[in-house]
Amino acid sequence: MNELLQSSLQPPSAEDRLRDLQIDLPSPPQPLGIYAMAVQSGRLLFLTGMLPTVQNTARCTGRVGAELGVEAARDAARIAALNALALIRAHTGSLDRVARIVRLSVFITTTEDFLQQPRVADGASIILQNVFGEARNPSRLVFGVQSLPLGVPVELELIVELEED
Amino acid sequence: MNELLQSSLQPPSAEDRLRDLQIDLPSPPQPLGIYAMAVQSGRLLFLTGMLPTVQNTARCTGRVGAELGVEAARDAARIAALNALALIRAHTGSLDRVARIVRLSVFITTTEDFLQQPRVADGASIILQNVFGEARNPSRLVFGVQSLPLGVPVELELIVELEED
Amino acid sequence: MNELLQSSLQPPSAEDRLRDLQIDLPSPPQPLGIYAMAVQSGRLLFLTGMLPTVQNTARCTGRVGAELGVEAARDAARIAALNALALIRAHTGSLDRVARIVRLSVFITTTEDFLQQPRVADGASIILQNVFGEARNPSRLVFGVQSLPLGVPVELELIVELEED
Repeated sequence: MNELLQSSLQPPSAEDRLRDLQIDLPSPPQPLGIYAMAVQSGRLLFLTGMLPTVQNTARCTGRVGAELGVEAARDAARIAALNALALIRAHTGSLDRVARIVRLSVFITTTEDFLQQPRVADGASIILQNVFGEARNPSRLVFGVQSLPLGVPVELELIVELEED
Repeated sequence: MNELLQSSLQPPSAEDRLRDLQIDLPSPPQPLGIYAMAVQSGRLLFLTGMLPTVQNTARCTGRVGAELGVEAARDAARIAALNALALIRAHTGSLDRVARIVRLSVFITTTEDFLQQPRVADGASIILQNVFGEARNPSRLVFGVQSLPLGVPVELELIVELEED
Repeated sequence: MNELLQSSLQPPSAEDRLRDLQIDLPSPPQPLGIYAMAVQSGRLLFLTGMLPTVQNTARCTGRVGAELGVEAARDAARIAALNALALIRAHTGSLDRVARIVRLSVFITTTEDFLQQPRVADGASIILQNVFGEARNPSRLVFGVQSLPLGVPVELELIVELEED
């Protein structure tokens, strides 16, 4: 097939999009305990829970609806998503090896009456959509939890499908 | 093989059971944010968290053990399970394409001292067992959470194995 | 290949390690509701949430940071991990059929300000590392929840990859 035609049919690559968005990924997070950061089984890559850390230190702490507002929590979700991208690239060599994020879960420390979990979770979903495109958006689980490691407001679960070798 | 003999060896189909139970599935739920309702990877279908909504509106709200009793929460779990069935059918064309529900998770907003999570979760499990049969019951995770989207008492996770094409 | 050489290249088997650790696995836990204890899909085995029970009775109850300390919760996580091993062996016939634990999740009932979730979770991770070896450590999710069945402090999720038949 003509190369130009092919490229016009294909969506832009995730690495290209990341460059266009002028996002520099951080160094991937390190374990806080006895576990691996990512484990692949077949074409699925299971990531350890991603936290809003910068160089393994909590970027912000607190409970959404009490010490933290929705915007701060959305930003925390975005930072955790960037850590996830950094980890996926460290594992695979390139985000272009991602076929799709199969599932994103967003666990948020909230007060009992908090209702804006989806808005907080969108902080992570927007960055994933910007990088992988709307057609590859993941399924999603979202709920409020009692506590998270380091006192952070958000933790992400990602299950990633990789392209075949 | 003789068709009559074959049908006597095979369990009744999920769509047949649903008809026998006189259950009309609702229209499948729509996203509340930036995500897909279901994503397939290989033979596994990962559903977005299913809520007890009717036409995307919360059917009931509150915390189990406080504003809501166990029976209301069981009913909420059942409604969420019907949404899951509607979504699976919308994705696959027919519930008969389901090989098995591999896992059901039930997240319940509870008071701190609530102990009847399994009884609430059974509200979802019963409908799945009625439709797919006991031999295809899923593994299950159940726990109490701090808060859920829309203030509902129950959210379901389903991972579904589909028949090979 | 020379058998001695092969054995020097291969890590010790999980069943051998368990014997070396002088660990006798309990009888596998039974369902508390309408579900299966473990469901296999392809090479992945999904376990039902594992609790710190002995003969289906809670070994300890309470919230970590309130009624229970970190050491008691670590011990509960270890007991739940032994139940998981017993269940995997019951399903597969031998722990040597495990290729890897792909993911371990640890759900802990905590107070709102509790920060030592990773230390509690390590109570389960240590036993898995001792049995399967560090190179096969799983990815991990950890968070604090509001309540758990039977009032126990810890529940485990395991997704296990089995060797090909």
